[in-house]
Amino acid sequence: MALKAAKNNLSLRPHCKTHQSVEIGTWLRDFGVASITVSSFPMAAYFAEAGWEDILVAFPFQPGEMEHLIRLSEVSKLSILVDSPAALPFLNHIPRQVGFYLDIDTGYGRTGIQTENTELMEQILVKARTNPLLEFRGFYCHAGHSYKVSSSKEIDRIHQKAISDLASLKKQFGSYHPRVLYGDTPNCSMQEEFGEIDELTPGNFVFYDLIQLALGACSMDDIAVSMECPVAGRYPASDRILVHGGAVHFSREFMTWQGKSIFGQLVQQTDAGWSAASREIYLTSLSQEHGMMEPCGDLMKQVHLGDRLLFLPVHSCLTAHLMRAYFTLDNIRITTLNS
Amino acid sequence: MALKAAKNNLSLRPHCKTHQSVEIGTWLRDFGVASITVSSFPMAAYFAEAGWEDILVAFPFQPGEMEHLIRLSEVSKLSILVDSPAALPFLNHIPRQVGFYLDIDTGYGRTGIQTENTELMEQILVKARTNPLLEFRGFYCHAGHSYKVSSSKEIDRIHQKAISDLASLKKQFGSYHPRVLYGDTPNCSMQEEFGEIDELTPGNFVFYDLIQLALGACSMDDIAVSMECPVAGRYPASDRILVHGGAVHFSREFMTWQGKSIFGQLVQQTDAGWSAASREIYLTSLSQEHGMMEPCGDLMKQVHLGDRLLFLPVHSCLTAHLMRAYFTLDNIRITTLNS
Repeated sequence: MALKAAKNNLSLRPHCKTHQSVEIGTWLRDFGVASITVSSFPMAAYFAEAGWEDILVAFPFQPGEMEHLIRLSEVSKLSILVDSPAALPFLNHIPRQVGFYLDIDTGYGRTGIQTENTELMEQILVKARTNPLLEFRGFYCHAGHSYKVSSSKEIDRIHQKAISDLASLKKQFGSYHPRVLYGDTPNCSMQEEFGEIDELTPGNFVFYDLIQLALGACSMDDIAVSMECPVAGRYPASDRILVHGGAVHFSREFMTWQGKSIFGQLVQQTDAGWSAASREIYLTSLSQEHGMMEPCGDLMKQVHLGDRLLFLPVHSCLTAHLMRAYFTLDNIRITTLNS
Repeated sequence: MALKAAKNNLSLRPHCKTHQSVEIGTWLRDFGVASITVSSFPMAAYFAEAGWEDILVAFPFQPGEMEHLIRLSEVSKLSILVDSPAALPFLNHIPRQVGFYLDIDTGYGRTGIQTENTELMEQILVKARTNPLLEFRGFYCHAGHSYKVSSSKEIDRIHQKAISDLASLKKQFGSYHPRVLYGDTPNCSMQEEFGEIDELTPGNFVFYDLIQLALGACSMDDIAVSMECPVAGRYPASDRILVHGGAVHFSREFMTWQGKSIFGQLVQQTDAGWSAASREIYLTSLSQEHGMMEPCGDLMKQVHLGDRLLFLPVHSCLTAHLMRAYFTLDNIRITTLNS
């Protein structure tokens, strides 16, 4: 991702909500990363304490975060997202400079101002100008509808609209010299041209997962995190194996495979880490602590009570959040915000 | 639940995986509860430290937990679940007495030995007898297929089969004087007759949630936990309101309502806590930190950025696990295993 950003003359501002780890953050620094994106103020405070200075909290600002914002503005170059004039009065009494990006909706339909609604953007910018400590830094767009597509043509269409929308906003609001931040992991992984974009903000690419694999955003070899689960039961009569790995470990994020919900995919442990198993075997049901694989076939003969199996998560962000720490292949523990 | 247990001359051994809180555990003591169920060894250790002595770890034992088991057996009357002879060799060198229950599957199809397979039960009991520190204490059954039904007739059928199966096992293995433990929250809430059962082990009833409400296991007034989420965005053009409450708060457990997935239900704050909102409004999409309500109707005019709204969770166990602490209506913080 760093190479792609460099090749396109873009900054990389990775979203750290996926790994939530200061130590993994230091790996990013080795690739020249100097600014980050986070999803909450506690996460921003955690990374600020570790020396990150340029932090964007990529969640629409709401006044309940005011104390956090004041504290962070004193130690970092803080940016927030705004998509409504209603946020501005709360920011009237900030003691230090805070930057904001306008959150732009190019079709995702979650947060943000629709591209066409430049009147609302203008209204916010005019209002914000009355506050000398509030600095408009540019536009932010998470084209998350890239996760909902079923073909690369559709994802291309989403990307083309987004970069064209953002280019036109950049031009229209050119007098502000806005920077344009963009980037969900599918688009950042699959696209090569980024138009007038200045910074990429993907997060999930640090690990990838089965969702990204299904979208074509990564290969199985790119998936950099797996869950180790001990075998806790073998049920040959019904061709099922139980592991200790449930909704409190994987989350309940699921994908559909042959009409069934799946919650993780078995991989084969190797000296170098893991590789695809010889046959596709999935966790097909989860409860709080239980994970069940079905059907298991030959695997039944190969595994015993207590054996540790590895699974790729459906959604690595949620799995990492629940597990709160990692172990490297050398068995070194890596902590996170929640460790 | 305590009254129902007393009326039927049953012990109540609540499953603490729902609340995971020592302090909430003390509330149970006020109702005469002296023994508990948990879902993991770390949870058992947490409650043992707080003085609970009689603890059942209701997850099939696997040898990776051996160290935990040894430590716990020294401070508590520990019981584990066994559903395979393969577990027994690992228990050969336990230093203190440990009890076990045979996990019985009366039709759920998750863990356990099928009722009919008394030969396998006998095989385990004969093998276990060679270990004087391993004590067979009885049968455990979680008839969790009660969560999958769509009528009270079906749940009755599940219950009747379970109590009849368990009664026949109790008789057949009468020479061991087994105790019979039983109880998912739907059955414990909705049934009145428990046959030869000795102890009830429900967990979710301590809070209930929208799943239990939909099953008819509780009324909305019985739901004792809600999530407070600040409003972070209003989108009148698309009739949507954003709250800061996502998959890392609620979990991604969902229910289906009018063909849509829902992740939580808005309730109305009152002096006494909360009550049903005048109109049914649901969280209809979640991402990592985002929760979206749609449609919102009149609510749009009533709420402002930063307002705090209350939502009932779809699955209180997973929500409580993610949030890791509670606040009472008097604003007193209650910690958990994960605080």
